[in-house]
Amino acid sequence: MYQLGIVRRHIQRAEREAVDRLAQFGSATVHEAMGRVGLMKPYIRPIYGGAHLAGTAVTVLLHPGDNWMMHVAAEQIREGDVVVAAVTADCTDGFFGDLLATSFRAQGALGLVIDAGVRDVKDLTAMGFPVWSKAISAKGTIKATLGSVNVSVVCAGAMVHPGDVIVADDDGVVVVPAALASQTADAAAAREANEAGKRARLAAGVLGLDMYQMRETLAKAGLKYID
Amino acid sequence: MYQLGIVRRHIQRAEREAVDRLAQFGSATVHEAMGRVGLMKPYIRPIYGGAHLAGTAVTVLLHPGDNWMMHVAAEQIREGDVVVAAVTADCTDGFFGDLLATSFRAQGALGLVIDAGVRDVKDLTAMGFPVWSKAISAKGTIKATLGSVNVSVVCAGAMVHPGDVIVADDDGVVVVPAALASQTADAAAAREANEAGKRARLAAGVLGLDMYQMRETLAKAGLKYID
Amino acid sequence: MYQLGIVRRHIQRAEREAVDRLAQFGSATVHEAMGRVGLMKPYIRPIYGGAHLAGTAVTVLLHPGDNWMMHVAAEQIREGDVVVAAVTADCTDGFFGDLLATSFRAQGALGLVIDAGVRDVKDLTAMGFPVWSKAISAKGTIKATLGSVNVSVVCAGAMVHPGDVIVADDDGVVVVPAALASQTADAAAAREANEAGKRARLAAGVLGLDMYQMRETLAKAGLKYID
Amino acid sequence: MYQLGIVRRHIQRAEREAVDRLAQFGSATVHEAMGRVGLMKPYIRPIYGGAHLAGTAVTVLLHPGDNWMMHVAAEQIREGDVVVAAVTADCTDGFFGDLLATSFRAQGALGLVIDAGVRDVKDLTAMGFPVWSKAISAKGTIKATLGSVNVSVVCAGAMVHPGDVIVADDDGVVVVPAALASQTADAAAAREANEAGKRARLAAGVLGLDMYQMRETLAKAGLKYID
Amino acid sequence: MYQLGIVRRHIQRAEREAVDRLAQFGSATVHEAMGRVGLMKPYIRPIYGGAHLAGTAVTVLLHPGDNWMMHVAAEQIREGDVVVAAVTADCTDGFFGDLLATSFRAQGALGLVIDAGVRDVKDLTAMGFPVWSKAISAKGTIKATLGSVNVSVVCAGAMVHPGDVIVADDDGVVVVPAALASQTADAAAAREANEAGKRARLAAGVLGLDMYQMRETLAKAGLKYID
Amino acid sequence: MYQLGIVRRHIQRAEREAVDRLAQFGSATVHEAMGRVGLMKPYIRPIYGGAHLAGTAVTVLLHPGDNWMMHVAAEQIREGDVVVAAVTADCTDGFFGDLLATSFRAQGALGLVIDAGVRDVKDLTAMGFPVWSKAISAKGTIKATLGSVNVSVVCAGAMVHPGDVIVADDDGVVVVPAALASQTADAAAAREANEAGKRARLAAGVLGLDMYQMRETLAKAGLKYID
Repeated sequence: MYQLGIVRRHIQRAEREAVDRLAQFGSATVHEAMGRVGLMKPYIRPIYGGAHLAGTAVTVLLHPGDNWMMHVAAEQIREGDVVVAAVTADCTDGFFGDLLATSFRAQGALGLVIDAGVRDVKDLTAMGFPVWSKAISAKGTIKATLGSVNVSVVCAGAMVHPGDVIVADDDGVVVVPAALASQTADAAAAREANEAGKRARLAAGVLGLDMYQMRETLAKAGLKYID
Repeated sequence: MYQLGIVRRHIQRAEREAVDRLAQFGSATVHEAMGRVGLMKPYIRPIYGGAHLAGTAVTVLLHPGDNWMMHVAAEQIREGDVVVAAVTADCTDGFFGDLLATSFRAQGALGLVIDAGVRDVKDLTAMGFPVWSKAISAKGTIKATLGSVNVSVVCAGAMVHPGDVIVADDDGVVVVPAALASQTADAAAAREANEAGKRARLAAGVLGLDMYQMRETLAKAGLKYID
Repeated sequence: MYQLGIVRRHIQRAEREAVDRLAQFGSATVHEAMGRVGLMKPYIRPIYGGAHLAGTAVTVLLHPGDNWMMHVAAEQIREGDVVVAAVTADCTDGFFGDLLATSFRAQGALGLVIDAGVRDVKDLTAMGFPVWSKAISAKGTIKATLGSVNVSVVCAGAMVHPGDVIVADDDGVVVVPAALASQTADAAAAREANEAGKRARLAAGVLGLDMYQMRETLAKAGLKYID
Repeated sequence: MYQLGIVRRHIQRAEREAVDRLAQFGSATVHEAMGRVGLMKPYIRPIYGGAHLAGTAVTVLLHPGDNWMMHVAAEQIREGDVVVAAVTADCTDGFFGDLLATSFRAQGALGLVIDAGVRDVKDLTAMGFPVWSKAISAKGTIKATLGSVNVSVVCAGAMVHPGDVIVADDDGVVVVPAALASQTADAAAAREANEAGKRARLAAGVLGLDMYQMRETLAKAGLKYID
Repeated sequence: MYQLGIVRRHIQRAEREAVDRLAQFGSATVHEAMGRVGLMKPYIRPIYGGAHLAGTAVTVLLHPGDNWMMHVAAEQIREGDVVVAAVTADCTDGFFGDLLATSFRAQGALGLVIDAGVRDVKDLTAMGFPVWSKAISAKGTIKATLGSVNVSVVCAGAMVHPGDVIVADDDGVVVVPAALASQTADAAAAREANEAGKRARLAAGVLGLDMYQMRETLAKAGLKYID
Repeated sequence: MYQLGIVRRHIQRAEREAVDRLAQFGSATVHEAMGRVGLMKPYIRPIYGGAHLAGTAVTVLLHPGDNWMMHVAAEQIREGDVVVAAVTADCTDGFFGDLLATSFRAQGALGLVIDAGVRDVKDLTAMGFPVWSKAISAKGTIKATLGSVNVSVVCAGAMVHPGDVIVADDDGVVVVPAALASQTADAAAAREANEAGKRARLAAGVLGLDMYQMRETLAKAGLKYID
């Protein structure tokens, strides 16, 4: 359970080597490698196209309309982290803009994933600071109520524990538990190795029906061809 | 992290005595007693008005359009449990109807909370089997893919661990971690004790401005009265 | 394809006997009997609980904010029909109220399904005139643009041809093509006959796992029990 | 424009006599009498069916998750008022429950319209205190930031000036500017007088096509009947 | 009505010449030429800007979370086809990625329209394989349940029959029934011819009020100018 | 209150000098300078990235699916205006395309903000005519019902009076009342002056916690650091 008013200073981050390996794969491949769990809801979208990162999660729990804990989170960022911000109730306010991005980057953050809104998207794009968010909104926030930093949170429907690996690109955001990072990278690599050959065959006109040997199973399931 | 293809047979349920005490309070009071965390998103609504329960969570992780694990979950239900069903992606299909309700009740379940759809609502209402769901849909489901039972899940934006206390009524559904059940019941009782006196004074025409002594704080914050 | 400015006066309604048999089943049973197709999206909800009907569709194609064709449709209603109203674009306006309900009923209509809003819900409820709609809205409509009556329409995601059977209750609205009405009624009856025995066994505590003999399949699929 | 940190103590309420006359009509009739403007969006729904009121607006402008100004508003309520609460950004939190309802009623309020969430709906229903809201949520709010009372607000897409008449029922919520209250009541009465005769004729089987003399206009517009 | 478990091998495609002529017009022009029917709902959006196509529909009916039939559909694609994928219930999963795109293109497909999600959008963009979808999601799908290929489907609120013409661009997706393709192309051409002159006059400062001679009609309708 | 069938020819526009100063700031800065009021809901999005404008509002009140008044509005545009279009009920139709954009630009308009849909987005982008809208839709509109021009409207949740300043960019759309334009520009300038220094310090690694001296307040609020 998450708790309020707490900052955990020491978290167990996934091993750098596994994170770096995961960084070579897209979110779709990693999600498959995870057995199709751990994906944030697809309403979380990148503010600009083409961004792709893998990093370790520093989590923040915010209240609607209040970004106070983002500043507390900044101090907990280490090189290679991704900040993952959850909110206790639905909110589209702009919790984050170019000043916080400047600060997060200076502390070593690779990007931000936030289940709420952000602003200054033109500046963030110019900076190349990638953000995946639920909304874009010029509306700022206050600093009045305590949330927490580095507790387990639910962000866009996915559980995130501090130190988990976040893999994000144009297709979405996947969470890989720190303990599963290495084996997930292995599975992703195996999956990807497998795909190049398939792509070539499909491009040459071979049908998936034949390549995956689906015809018999389909017939058994009762598929009927009508002329 | 949740995992697929797993059924945990022994879970640590919150203590019955604490659950029974929590059952005396509404979800709003319990949510306040928790410090305003643990509430499911308000799109989860009761299928009929007036239901109110507190029970221990048996969790189920389902795939969209597939209710196979509901049958697996039935066997893990103990007297006083509430089944909490999460889905790996948004889905409004009717995963649950009067047959499953009959089975769940026979095993001791008090009700169901599901981040998806249900059907047979007329029968469920006649049975008095309370359900909180995201949707009502006549669409049935298949039985093809493994999910899990009694793993930690995210249901309607809230983290639920097996054995946690679920308090649900017309206002929504709150999750109380098993370890916090007793202290939350204490806090809820203290809060409620406090409210009766306030209600009487407000009914007599005393203003909250005076009863809560807000006038000075408001003036300091800069509130201006204009004639 | 639907066309505008057309009223088809003679339509092939499903046979009364098949409609009457379908009226004995809920929308969930009929949807299963159809092989899980033909259901309207679950955002279509009854304006009051407990209504249940089966009738033949008179279809209307409306424009947003314009209910002119409802009056044209009234003349095409025969005893036992259900009016199914589609709109060429999303709209929540109140296209229908107590006056039109009075007229529709006088012409023999059993109810209305509309992919838009209705109003006068208190009166409609008092009249016992059942409506399934997307919204409730006091906003009235104009009479300026031609739509059509008794053409094929898409209503809440389902294709409806004039004369099809509409089965609607608290769980939703199912469309049964006229030509399939009789065989769907047979399948529904078979399905329902099957359920009473199951319900009794489940109520007696037999698990679905055993009753449906799922244990072996689940084990083969890899389900693991952990203590 | 609305402004923050302001409480207007003296507002020009619509004349009681006009309000009382408007109270005899449903929101749909009043909305038509207004020329089809002034309706709140249909996502605003009553928390229980059958409520119907007309009263003068005391307006409140709130911030997301902060109900401080509700207590400030309580003091400005006069007999026959309806509190209309707007929020500066989308929020579903429960800003209002049975304690505030007790206070509002003691000050003379007839009900509440709020573009956000409320809680304690079972108690509010038992009290018979009508509320039209966007959501129901057990989540409470803080008291930290100034909003305003009795300034012009946008509530659920409708402009509301303090003192305007609010007519609300099962079909929705309409805002009648104070200056137009009397003439709107006249127009509503004229409209309603007109309806009884129509209803009787429609019930007797007369078609709207004939009663409203639409056939010629439809033919001119190009409507074609096909056999 | 659509049916499950069926693949129609021979469909009547719209004539190539008409399709080619339709390809010269945007979806807005074609939609007007159709008399303002046949448009998919605007939640269907291109995954990258600037794509524009006209092709003949090969339809697929899928189940939520199951893309098995996409492989069956691949075999039915002919040069110049557009695959149109419908789902039996709302789903945002990623049913389609770069492997299927490679296969579809090898078979002659111009693009995909899908009432669900897709993934590998960076690769699809690099390939220049245009897709119009409801969502982007890294979540993959299973292959377990039969749908159909080349049956009539409802995709994003529009009826699509196999062989119909699909015109898609940045403004949306329009469906032109095969039998109406030629006359719709004529109407579109007439409409477009008409627009160039209008554009020049408007650019020169002529008002639409004068160019379309609206002043008198507006005055008759009661428009009042106030100084 | 807005009224129908009215065109106000003479409106009090905000002073050009204040508008020009506001044009130097982003919507987020202006919104903060306004005290966090006046923002349209974040569902209003630019049809292409990077646009930024500040201009005076010419308002239009439309009915769903009817763009007649857009032509009436064109005549009221003066150099430097932004057209702000509201609709009496939710609608995503494409009320505006390249012909109207050509006309609006010829009359001096800088851009359009519309609480509905637009089409011809490829042409609008090529023209560099900026539009902020709720939707993109190929669906056209009719010209049948009177709305109004230059009355007060509610657009995307914000009140807009004719002559108010509209500041719009990638972050959203803010409305500054004409009378507050100059002082808001002052406040925005003061705010911006303040930010450059902060950005440099944050970039150098200074934490917001220290720069804003938050540590003591956080500790007082009860924040606890855990190792």
